Amino acid sequence: MEKMKIVATAKQVPERVVTNDDLAGLMDTSDDWIYPRTGIHNRHVVTDENTSDLATSVAQKLLKEAGWAASDLDFIIVSTMSPDALSPHTSAIVQGNIGAEKAFAFDINAACSGFVYGMSVASSFLSSGRYQKGMFIGAEVLSKLIDWKDRTVSVLFGDGAGGVLLEASDEEQGLLSEELETFGDRGEAILTGRFANKNAFAGEISPLDPYFHQDGRGVYSFATREVPKALDKALQKANLSADDVDFYLAHQANHRIIESIAKNFGQSMDKFPTNMVEYGNTSAASTAILLDELYKSGQVKPGMTVAFVGFGGGLAIGAQIWKL
Amino acid sequence: MEKMKIVATAKQVPERVVTNDDLAGLMDTSDDWIYPRTGIHNRHVVTDENTSDLATSVAQKLLKEAGWAASDLDFIIVSTMSPDALSPHTSAIVQGNIGAEKAFAFDINAACSGFVYGMSVASSFLSSGRYQKGMFIGAEVLSKLIDWKDRTVSVLFGDGAGGVLLEASDEEQGLLSEELETFGDRGEAILTGRFANKNAFAGEISPLDPYFHQDGRGVYSFATREVPKALDKALQKANLSADDVDFYLAHQANHRIIESIAKNFGQSMDKFPTNMVEYGNTSAASTAILLDELYKSGQVKPGMTVAFVGFGGGLAIGAQIWKL
Repeated sequence: MEKMKIVATAKQVPERVVTNDDLAGLMDTSDDWIYPRTGIHNRHVVTDENTSDLATSVAQKLLKEAGWAASDLDFIIVSTMSPDALSPHTSAIVQGNIGAEKAFAFDINAACSGFVYGMSVASSFLSSGRYQKGMFIGAEVLSKLIDWKDRTVSVLFGDGAGGVLLEASDEEQGLLSEELETFGDRGEAILTGRFANKNAFAGEISPLDPYFHQDGRGVYSFATREVPKALDKALQKANLSADDVDFYLAHQANHRIIESIAKNFGQSMDKFPTNMVEYGNTSAASTAILLDELYKSGQVKPGMTVAFVGFGGGLAIGAQIWKL
Repeated sequence: MEKMKIVATAKQVPERVVTNDDLAGLMDTSDDWIYPRTGIHNRHVVTDENTSDLATSVAQKLLKEAGWAASDLDFIIVSTMSPDALSPHTSAIVQGNIGAEKAFAFDINAACSGFVYGMSVASSFLSSGRYQKGMFIGAEVLSKLIDWKDRTVSVLFGDGAGGVLLEASDEEQGLLSEELETFGDRGEAILTGRFANKNAFAGEISPLDPYFHQDGRGVYSFATREVPKALDKALQKANLSADDVDFYLAHQANHRIIESIAKNFGQSMDKFPTNMVEYGNTSAASTAILLDELYKSGQVKPGMTVAFVGFGGGLAIGAQIWKL
C-alpha cells in the first residue's frame, strides 16, 4: 500500500443544460434514439467559460472543503484533452488564479483515462516522499472540439471538471494497486484536435479536421473486452477479489459499456454507480465528478475500498484500487 | 538521493535545415539581426513528419542503444506542447509504433520546462517503487504553431526530439534534488494553440489566433531573475554548491538568457553548454537533445553531477540536480 489520503473532493459543471430534445432541434436525432443507446439525457455545456475556469472553481472548492490555504499545495496537476491552450498550460492558469505560490503545475493528457492516469502521477509524487500535498483536477470543455452538426458524437459529450486533494498519510489508507495499459495501435478509433505538420518549408499540407471522430463500435468492443482484464489484474496485485470492492467508479462514457463491464466482471450494477444521464461523457473529469457526488451523498466513505476505472482515447485504459 | 540511472540518451531532428538567410528570404530579417540577439543560426523544421514521428525515432534509438526490448518498458511519457493531436496523445502513438505492449503512455505539457517536469514525473514513478523501467521523451514540432510571416517568433523556434531511458538503480546515482516553480499569473507572456470556448449554445465567440506569441523582454527578465533562485534552492536541497556541478544543461531558448543565468549564478559559460546555434528553441526537446550530444561527445559521463534547468511557457521553471 502506498499510504495517502483523499482529503477533499469537488466538482464544477456549467449551468447551461442541453437536453436530448435541444439537440433534436439542431440535427436529426431524438431522445428515443440517444437515451437507450447511451444512458444520456442531458449534458452541460459552457457559455462563457473555458477549461481553466471550471478547473479554477474546483480548485477553490477543494481548498475550502479541506480548510487548506492555496500556499499549502506542493503541486497542481490537471488532466485534460481540451486545454484552454497549448501554452499556457491549464494547470498553470489554475495555479495563478488561486495564488498557489509554492505549487508547480503541469497538464497531463491520457484522454478519457485522464482521471486514473492523473491519480497515478499525483500518487507517485506522494509515494516518492518528495511532496506531501497535491491537487489533481480532471477538466474538460469538449464542446469546443465538437462539430455540432455531427449527430454521431455531439450527443455523447459534455463539459465539466472534478478533482481531489491528496496528502501523504500515516494511516492504513491509500493506493493499493494499479494496472495501466495503452494500445496505441488502435489510436485512430478516437480522434480530435489534430494539428497538421505545416510550415513555410513543408509544401502544401492539407489542414486536418479538428473535430471529434469516434469509432463507437470499435471502442465499445475494445472497452468491454480489455477493461475487465485490467481490473482483474489490479485486483490480483492488491490480493483482493471483485467482491471486496465496495464501488467501481468507471469513466462515464456510456451506460451500456459500463453494464457490459459489470456483467463481464460478475458484479451488480449497484456497485457501478453512474451519472452520465445528467453530464454525458466528460472524459478526464467524469470519474472525479462521480466521486464527488458519491462522497457528498454519503454513499462512498472513508474506509471503503473503491476501484477507479478509465478507458478511451489513446487508446488507453486503467484501473486503480484505493482504500479510502 | 532517489536512486535511478539514465541508461541511454537519443535525439532526432528533421533533416531540413532553415538558416537565418532562408528566413531573410521570407520576411524582413537577417542573420545580422537574429544571431547576436539569440545565438541562433539554424533551426531544423519538418517536411513530412509530425511530433510522434520524431518521438518514435528517438524511442527506437533509445531501445537500440540500451539493448532493451520494447516490451521491457513499464511506461512511456512524452512531454510536448505541440502534439500530433489532442487525441490520440503522442505518447500513445509512440507506444503503438514501437510495440511496447506492457507500457502505459501519457503526455505531459509544461511547455519549455517540459524536460525537467517530465524527468520529475518519470523519476517519481521509479521512486515510488511501482515501476522499474521508463522512457521519457521531449518532442516538439513547433513549426506548425508558428505564423511564418511573424519575424518576432518564427526566427526563434525549431523542431526536434530527444529522450532518455531511466531505470531504478542500486548504485549511488540518481535524482539528488529538484525545485519546480510555476508563475501562472504571468502565463500571457507565452501564448500558443488557443482554443476558443465555442459551441452551438454559447453564442458568437471569436476564434483565437492559434499562433505563437511571446513577450520576449518579459520572458527574458523573468527567466534571468527567477531561474538562478530556483537553481540555488535545488542546490541547497542537495547540499551542494554551484561549483560542485560539472555541467548545467539549460533549456536552449536564447544564448543571452543562458549567459545572464550563468553570470548571475557566478559560473563560467564553459559549464553551460549550448546548441541553439543549430536547433533554435525546441521547447521540451532542447535539454534532451543537448544531453544526448554531450553524452555522445564524451563531455558528460556517468559519475558526473549535472543540473537540468528549464524555463518558459506557463510561466514555469525548474531545476534538477542529478548524479549520473
